[in-house]
Amino acid sequence: MTLPEYLRAQQARIDSELDRLVPPDAAPPATIHRAMRYSLMAGGKRIRPILCLEAARAAGHAGHGVVRAACSLELIHTYSLIHDDLPALDNDDYRRGKPTCHKVFGEAMAILTGDALLTLAFQTLAEVDCPADRRVRLVAELAVASGTVGGMIGGQVADIEGERQTPTAELLDTIHRAKTGALLRASVRLGAIFAGASEAELAALTAFGEHVGLAFQIVDDILDVEESSEVLGKTAGKDASQQKITFPAVYGLERSREMAAQECGLAHAALVDFGERAGRLRQIADMIVQRKS
Amino acid sequence: MTLPEYLRAQQARIDSELDRLVPPDAAPPATIHRAMRYSLMAGGKRIRPILCLEAARAAGHAGHGVVRAACSLELIHTYSLIHDDLPALDNDDYRRGKPTCHKVFGEAMAILTGDALLTLAFQTLAEVDCPADRRVRLVAELAVASGTVGGMIGGQVADIEGERQTPTAELLDTIHRAKTGALLRASVRLGAIFAGASEAELAALTAFGEHVGLAFQIVDDILDVEESSEVLGKTAGKDASQQKITFPAVYGLERSREMAAQECGLAHAALVDFGERAGRLRQIADMIVQRKS
Repeated sequence: MTLPEYLRAQQARIDSELDRLVPPDAAPPATIHRAMRYSLMAGGKRIRPILCLEAARAAGHAGHGVVRAACSLELIHTYSLIHDDLPALDNDDYRRGKPTCHKVFGEAMAILTGDALLTLAFQTLAEVDCPADRRVRLVAELAVASGTVGGMIGGQVADIEGERQTPTAELLDTIHRAKTGALLRASVRLGAIFAGASEAELAALTAFGEHVGLAFQIVDDILDVEESSEVLGKTAGKDASQQKITFPAVYGLERSREMAAQECGLAHAALVDFGERAGRLRQIADMIVQRKS
Repeated sequence: MTLPEYLRAQQARIDSELDRLVPPDAAPPATIHRAMRYSLMAGGKRIRPILCLEAARAAGHAGHGVVRAACSLELIHTYSLIHDDLPALDNDDYRRGKPTCHKVFGEAMAILTGDALLTLAFQTLAEVDCPADRRVRLVAELAVASGTVGGMIGGQVADIEGERQTPTAELLDTIHRAKTGALLRASVRLGAIFAGASEAELAALTAFGEHVGLAFQIVDDILDVEESSEVLGKTAGKDASQQKITFPAVYGLERSREMAAQECGLAHAALVDFGERAGRLRQIADMIVQRKS
């Protein structure tokens, strides 16, 4: 199977598990379940859940149970997009090529929909099919990665406060490690923990997640400069217009491309002891650096 | 010790645990930690954590460990107030007698502060000092009580959609069972589960929580009609001006008062097998019905 075929198959597994996970449209109160499904099923690439599945496979788990744990990452990611897109934050009208949640359902419902997805993420992990001591680790891991201290929310705050500040390498590193890095790192760690990985395996997969996460963000910043809104499915060029701190702004485009390639190399190096079980993880790292949207 | 003295001592225990739980003001990014503390330390009555502590005591746990679990309820309650007060929702300028979170820190920060408190609630429960199988139950319990299906968010959505609808007894029951009832019910259940309560004890304490929760909401609705904003520390008379469905609107004031007293009686009846260990729970039920703010 080629990588695109393989990823489509994994996306389908994740989508059907998400469909089972979220209350049906018809369940009262219907509006919020429609809004949750609208944003969740908007055609995301499911990169975080897929990293989770592949990390579990690298650590020796090939079963179906981990798919549900992986879904918690997409619930968190989608909640963060809904809240980020709100008028008070990034004020974005389009996401994944569709009108944003608050454009369709109104601001009040978009706020509550984000809250609901966040809450459902933790319920999901508390109920996955693995021993209770692993489940509490999964919940704590996801909460820390999503939280204020070195986690996603902390990164968003630093990002908002970083606008119009001098773009330094140090500030850039702090923001991206937290804002997107922490959840990508947690994606592989959740898979590894679910699978009962050894400490050595967990450390290696964590390093992989950190390097892939950084590469992902560098490429995201480059694409925001280079690609059209049409290709991205969201408003392009927003970083510059909002004076966000980005890799191209700090290092220039050429050096940013070199850095992404370097992080990709380090991600490969972290997987050296996993052999064929990590074959797809290596391909995904390459794809993240080569992607055009 | 009189009940007011006892409650003040319990509030102090909870406040100092919350202080240990939330990252310090100075921890970067400082703004959100200041905002979290601003709303959390605004002088709440801590009724949910206290119900949790007393339920644990009734089920035989007299130690300190449960205080941290109890704090998760205040984190959820405070996040819901911050998001509820936003301009897109209730648009309230005052809460507990102080300017609301978004009036002080801005809308973007208030949204993220609510998200952060919600996230911290689950991290807290995942890390409390009790066996892992109980901890995953606590996480799932709180998530369901806060969620869309019969939980707090579901109740908020039903409440928003219920404005300007005909106020029927059935709609009122559905909204309040979810909007405030679910978290009050979860408050006693968290304490009971933490303490390792038997199924019979858990069922009795759950019944107590449901009756107390209903009494609490009836009295809240009555106070909104009868008391001034100054006494309540929040805008009074908002239910009527927003055409909310309330107990006085459906049943009238006199019948609402009778219903609150009846629920209080049922709450007492649920505790019949607990003897002196539930003494404070009984006093709290009485206080909830007799309170003036």
